[in-house]
Amino acid sequence: MLPLQGLFQRQHHFQHLLAMAHWDQATMMPDHSAEARADAIAELETLCHQQLTAPQVEEWLNQAAQDSTLDAKQKASLREMQRQWRQAAVLPEQLVKAQSLAGARCEHAWREQRKANDWQGFAANLKEVVALSREEAQIRAAATGSTPYDALMELYEPGMNCARIDSLFGELKTWLPGMIHDVVEKQRSLSIVQPQPPFAPAAQEQLGRAVMALLGFDFHAGRLDISAHPFCGGVPEDVRITTRYSEQDFTQSLMGIVHETGHARYEQNLPGDWLKLPVGAARSMGVHESQSLFFEMQLGRHPAFLARIHPLISEHLGQRPGMDLANLQRLYNQVEPGFIRVDADEVTYPCHVILRYEIERDLMNGALEVEHIPERWDAAMQQYLGLSTAGNYRNGCMQDIHWTDGSFGYFPSYTLGAMIAAQLAASVRTQLGDIGELITQDRLAEVFTWLRQHIWQQGSLLETSELLRQATGEDLSARFFRAHLQARYLD
Amino acid sequence: MLPLQGLFQRQHHFQHLLAMAHWDQATMMPDHSAEARADAIAELETLCHQQLTAPQVEEWLNQAAQDSTLDAKQKASLREMQRQWRQAAVLPEQLVKAQSLAGARCEHAWREQRKANDWQGFAANLKEVVALSREEAQIRAAATGSTPYDALMELYEPGMNCARIDSLFGELKTWLPGMIHDVVEKQRSLSIVQPQPPFAPAAQEQLGRAVMALLGFDFHAGRLDISAHPFCGGVPEDVRITTRYSEQDFTQSLMGIVHETGHARYEQNLPGDWLKLPVGAARSMGVHESQSLFFEMQLGRHPAFLARIHPLISEHLGQRPGMDLANLQRLYNQVEPGFIRVDADEVTYPCHVILRYEIERDLMNGALEVEHIPERWDAAMQQYLGLSTAGNYRNGCMQDIHWTDGSFGYFPSYTLGAMIAAQLAASVRTQLGDIGELITQDRLAEVFTWLRQHIWQQGSLLETSELLRQATGEDLSARFFRAHLQARYLD
Repeated sequence: MLPLQGLFQRQHHFQHLLAMAHWDQATMMPDHSAEARADAIAELETLCHQQLTAPQVEEWLNQAAQDSTLDAKQKASLREMQRQWRQAAVLPEQLVKAQSLAGARCEHAWREQRKANDWQGFAANLKEVVALSREEAQIRAAATGSTPYDALMELYEPGMNCARIDSLFGELKTWLPGMIHDVVEKQRSLSIVQPQPPFAPAAQEQLGRAVMALLGFDFHAGRLDISAHPFCGGVPEDVRITTRYSEQDFTQSLMGIVHETGHARYEQNLPGDWLKLPVGAARSMGVHESQSLFFEMQLGRHPAFLARIHPLISEHLGQRPGMDLANLQRLYNQVEPGFIRVDADEVTYPCHVILRYEIERDLMNGALEVEHIPERWDAAMQQYLGLSTAGNYRNGCMQDIHWTDGSFGYFPSYTLGAMIAAQLAASVRTQLGDIGELITQDRLAEVFTWLRQHIWQQGSLLETSELLRQATGEDLSARFFRAHLQARYLD
Repeated sequence: MLPLQGLFQRQHHFQHLLAMAHWDQATMMPDHSAEARADAIAELETLCHQQLTAPQVEEWLNQAAQDSTLDAKQKASLREMQRQWRQAAVLPEQLVKAQSLAGARCEHAWREQRKANDWQGFAANLKEVVALSREEAQIRAAATGSTPYDALMELYEPGMNCARIDSLFGELKTWLPGMIHDVVEKQRSLSIVQPQPPFAPAAQEQLGRAVMALLGFDFHAGRLDISAHPFCGGVPEDVRITTRYSEQDFTQSLMGIVHETGHARYEQNLPGDWLKLPVGAARSMGVHESQSLFFEMQLGRHPAFLARIHPLISEHLGQRPGMDLANLQRLYNQVEPGFIRVDADEVTYPCHVILRYEIERDLMNGALEVEHIPERWDAAMQQYLGLSTAGNYRNGCMQDIHWTDGSFGYFPSYTLGAMIAAQLAASVRTQLGDIGELITQDRLAEVFTWLRQHIWQQGSLLETSELLRQATGEDLSARFFRAHLQARYLD
């Protein structure tokens, strides 16, 4: 295992520099530096790929596989090394470099094109990204015997595939439209007012930091900054989350910060002694999203949590019309079909994911072309949420960063994460007690200890399904998510 | 030349990522991430060193040296490649890695140790840095037949050595003490008051940006941020300058920004088409410093420039006691022996440099040990400037960042830069006219065009001495610097 450990430690160090260069690109970098940055990132990504796929690595992996002295942790470590190697070795170096360059170009241009609602400009770049991703998907699919889209999803959610997603999302589709209807009806009579703007970004930032501290974010090993599209980046030793502030509305940014803090605590609490090896990394994108959604949905929007942070909100933003606790509790649990995924409530959110899943699946499997995305998007939005996005690219198919750099296969993770979060919360409830009571009794630390033990400190020791079984006693099921929505919005 | 160009282009890309990681380390990074960052930087620095010193590089260089078809630019390019290769190849990889780690550790700890005046804590780290730098200096000296310190100075100022420095600094020593005495006497009767604080950092920053814009800084390819020790970092395509704000005094930060803007404009205007090759890089540290000092001393503190930016100062900081133009002109040209190099006026500044030069020269040549630095420092400060720093390490030998990461041999560049700047300004005066009149007539663009043509766009095409001869018609001489001081402070 020693030469493998050396290799993956070097990769960890290079990934540190790449993560920081990406973070800087989204938060700090001036606009004319994009090309130089893209060139620099592509160079190191190419090198990482070369080192991971060098001829001797396969030999090292084969030798390690025959080592009968490996303990459970070492076996898991080897399994994750094999997975990374397999996923990297199958791709030609030139493709990796071309994707890095095209993705950086497309993403950078998108930041302005989205503002300008410039679909034609964006589509030209996106076609290049899609063409390269299809090439990648076909190469991966040919190697594993799966469909192209399944092969990409494996990168984000190992062990997942379209058959399982279709089953899980298919179940959602049977009851979700009815539930959205019922909740909207139930909430129709509620009086919900928007807190009165303006809210100074500096005050919002101070509030955000106070809530991050309450949620245990370690500011000695991370930062909060601003970017066009909020994300959690950096490295486990230096976790960088971002948000964006609107003077008109503090509520989205505040809950966005709670969300990213969930990602951040997972990263900040990964097992330190294995941190430089793949087995020490976060399990999957779905599990990652389950932590952010646990923080946002199970904790953050809980009426008891809002009661807990209401004094902080008043302290930083003052008392104004619409800032009373009862109104904020209604506002943060309001269900309303809308255009923007990142602004969606948790009841309508799966609709945004399912439509993106269906589009990117067909795009990668060759059943859809870039120029037809807007009409597919519009049709699905009308069908699932009763809204039209015709001509409104900015708030339609140009709203997300994911496709700009070719991250096809990622979107399902959001709804898988929501389901996992609900399932974990059900176990917390069984083992520790009602979450509202835990919050009210200032016992959040116990919840974090539970998550640390069952999820964060596990790293990638177990496969996702086994991780979930050990934490909750059973396989992933949509029924916990349904029960959570039922309890919060209809009971 | 093709394989060499590929190699140096890769180095350029990796240096981009390293420069950004260093910038982030000084401006953004949370404190517990220092070790992970140091590991990551050391890994890529080691790789750069490996690639630059790989066995085939010497062959490529030898082949290129026999190529009779090279034009002047290619010949200069090859000369700089040979220089970089020679400087890198002589060092063992383990030493490079150990220096990177020890330097990062020492620099990071210094940020707190300086505040705490903790010489003992700092000395422990510095000894490690000095031991490694001596090892480096001895290896370099053995390879070139020079003294250890000369071998290090060659890294920053190719072609320079102690004999020449001793001559130039020796000349300064004959007239500078007398001049300091005369200027202090002349200014004794001047009424100079400190502008009345406080000055909000946000307003100072806005003022700084306005002055940077006036000086032609390209904000599309660079940034202004905050760090404990101001510097100009990043890469030519993305130049990052920093400053630090004191609420008690805006004047130092403002002129610090003018200084770093001089460095930045040099970087931002290097020859774009050779940028990824060594011939496209800045010539030397002395030439770099000549640009920052041209901006700060020849332009920034000129009474006419202060008159030009006085409306901006009033606009951003308001009108208060001590903010009138006449007082600011006196304040910005006040000569007063003090503890801090970066706060020193240009008349006493060479004393700070000469004492550091003498200490680091003896330290590297083995004639001085770390534990005796404070007493040497104190003795020299008393001799040159009549001030004692006994026990005051924070404002004595712990004030600079340079030694923390082993940058021995750099300090002479500051005073070489001051001399070069004065010599360049004399040529500008001959060719374009009096600098005060150029400023008053809003003809700064002509000065920048002159610098762009004679210095910035030259990159490393010429050796420093030839660059200076082509720009000014003669070799480096201290007489222009003396004439400048005489004219500004005594005539």
